[in-house]
Amino acid sequence: MHNADPFLFQLFFIFVWAKLFGEIFERLRLPAVLGEILAGIVVGPYGANLVHLDDPIYAIAEIGAIFLLFTIGLETNPKDLISVGVTSLYVALAGIAVPFLLGFGYMILRHDSPHEAIFVAAAMVATSVGVTARVLGDMHVLQILPARIILGAAVFDDILGLILLSVVVGLVSTTGTAWAQLTVTTIEAIGFALVMMFYAPRVVRRMEPGLERMSTQDAPLIIAIAICLGLSYAAVKIGMAAIIGAFFAGLAFAEYSPRWNLRPRAFAINEFLAPFFFFSMGARLNLMVFDRKLIISAVIISVLAFLSKLMGCGLPVLRSGWKTALKVGVGMTPRGEVGLIVALVGLQMNIISQPAYALVVFMTAATTLIAPPIMRLVFREDSPPQPAFVERRRSAM
Amino acid sequence: MHNADPFLFQLFFIFVWAKLFGEIFERLRLPAVLGEILAGIVVGPYGANLVHLDDPIYAIAEIGAIFLLFTIGLETNPKDLISVGVTSLYVALAGIAVPFLLGFGYMILRHDSPHEAIFVAAAMVATSVGVTARVLGDMHVLQILPARIILGAAVFDDILGLILLSVVVGLVSTTGTAWAQLTVTTIEAIGFALVMMFYAPRVVRRMEPGLERMSTQDAPLIIAIAICLGLSYAAVKIGMAAIIGAFFAGLAFAEYSPRWNLRPRAFAINEFLAPFFFFSMGARLNLMVFDRKLIISAVIISVLAFLSKLMGCGLPVLRSGWKTALKVGVGMTPRGEVGLIVALVGLQMNIISQPAYALVVFMTAATTLIAPPIMRLVFREDSPPQPAFVERRRSAM
Repeated sequence: MHNADPFLFQLFFIFVWAKLFGEIFERLRLPAVLGEILAGIVVGPYGANLVHLDDPIYAIAEIGAIFLLFTIGLETNPKDLISVGVTSLYVALAGIAVPFLLGFGYMILRHDSPHEAIFVAAAMVATSVGVTARVLGDMHVLQILPARIILGAAVFDDILGLILLSVVVGLVSTTGTAWAQLTVTTIEAIGFALVMMFYAPRVVRRMEPGLERMSTQDAPLIIAIAICLGLSYAAVKIGMAAIIGAFFAGLAFAEYSPRWNLRPRAFAINEFLAPFFFFSMGARLNLMVFDRKLIISAVIISVLAFLSKLMGCGLPVLRSGWKTALKVGVGMTPRGEVGLIVALVGLQMNIISQPAYALVVFMTAATTLIAPPIMRLVFREDSPPQPAFVERRRSAM
Repeated sequence: MHNADPFLFQLFFIFVWAKLFGEIFERLRLPAVLGEILAGIVVGPYGANLVHLDDPIYAIAEIGAIFLLFTIGLETNPKDLISVGVTSLYVALAGIAVPFLLGFGYMILRHDSPHEAIFVAAAMVATSVGVTARVLGDMHVLQILPARIILGAAVFDDILGLILLSVVVGLVSTTGTAWAQLTVTTIEAIGFALVMMFYAPRVVRRMEPGLERMSTQDAPLIIAIAICLGLSYAAVKIGMAAIIGAFFAGLAFAEYSPRWNLRPRAFAINEFLAPFFFFSMGARLNLMVFDRKLIISAVIISVLAFLSKLMGCGLPVLRSGWKTALKVGVGMTPRGEVGLIVALVGLQMNIISQPAYALVVFMTAATTLIAPPIMRLVFREDSPPQPAFVERRRSAM
């Protein structure tokens, strides 16, 4: 332990800076994770270069991403879908297809390689509902129809977004007959998702009596972590990203999460590990790549990301009136963790370049910053008159 | 993430094996951590060699040790000492001096180097009260006088044991005028301990309103983790072991732990990380070093460890009758995490050899296994008649 100086320093330094920036962002009513990423940009190797990131830190960042997706899975209760299921599914599907096609088209127009175009496009599809839920919660409108459609669609959106990532990873990892391979990977990914959504929760239910009889302290938490790590490893083995296994592990335990009190404890692990992930995301971003041309591209990508979600998600609910369509569309625009992770996977696989990575980070930040004020505007009519005291809801993003 | 195969595999594999062995040990009513260490011995590089441990795993094991000591600190409420303070202090002091002197003497007789002798002796001093608390809890005798003396003494014991470790680390890191340096280190260590015990909780108390006003989710947990990491780093900087900083960080927050609900969440982090620490402890142990001579030494060290605590801790309470002295003495015999960590620090600093490391692991396992049956015997007269249903208490060790 005595020779662990640099590692302990990195651990302490990164945690403090990430949380400090997070706190500042929270006070500005901006998402904390954007602050944590900014911390990485500012004090990381490409910024003030106050800290060097060694392999162990990247390893911890990777576990951070795994637990992040695990907790997102834990919160994704498929039961939320029952009342608005079909509508939400259409919203999610169109909200994935439109941004993907627009993003892919624009990247090809920019003369990027098809692989790079696919990755950036895939990073544009996943809505991060944390910001939306927080704004709607602040306005006390979580119970109105558009809000319920959004929350339901976000569930499908996460699942479909991760299936898309599997397909994309499978597609670019392969050589030769791409279409045959694409079909196989798609079937694998959808099969995995279906098994985890419908079969795995039943397995967990059957495990329940045995689990509660186990001698190990906190057996359900231990088993959930073990399954999360196992599925992450299995996902990589069959050619998907680790986080997909972690997400579906969370999903399998979502139903029993309240009973076994998994959520606050998985969150505690997450609170410790996730800042390393977001910080390292920022630390990988070289701001110097933003020349005039790239800034224009970044703005265009961000506008496309915003409009494509607005249209894609608004369209399926247009017959409920344009106001509902507008609300659903705007509520689905913020991007977040999943898109960032897609970009990071691409960067680590050497498929996307630093500029493309920068585009995704910029787009994520832009949509996340722009959405809340617009949401407050379009949902204002639904918000009940507020007492002077406004309860602050806190969410991961 | 795609290239993270070996790391993810190690993560999953180690976690599962450690917890599996832990569960088997729990079912045999043995301490789970011994099972986790055994897992490392059995499937680790010196055993079946099913898993290779890379640097990131050791880094995680190190964070595991830090969080382990942090949670031990969180549980060490100085207020437990009030009723039996002075008696417990004497018990702890004599219970440290006698094992240290006997252990040091025996190692010197074995012709080990003084530095090695000091480390092994230091590893013999720290009582692990987890096993004792569990046995006494099972027997419903936690409220009788000897039990309260034991629990109080264990608090002093942890603190004094860690001060001793600081002094030992300081002593062997230095060259030249050892006695002057020893004095400085001792004063430093005691000063650090006193500041953390008496001043730090007041700082935490003063931070309280600010903390609860912070925008960051779970601000108290985040601040506690940040301080834990910071003090761990600071401890290394001034020449102590990282875990000492972590322990005192826990101690500073012990008073507010229930209010801020820190314990279950720090425990969750610990449940994830600690198995990597114990597994890697086992994985470092080469059973091949146990030749006939070393086995004899290990048995002698274990007997010395048992008898020295029995006498050292029994003596100060002898005037309360020999039965009380016997109960207190036996209850203080199990060694645990702190001793193991002392040995590990020595191994990492290349001060103790594989055989000396093996001695400490053997001694820890032996005292932990022998103490419970003897405790059941000597405390039997105090145990109220049991209903058929015996509530099982679970503890970290």
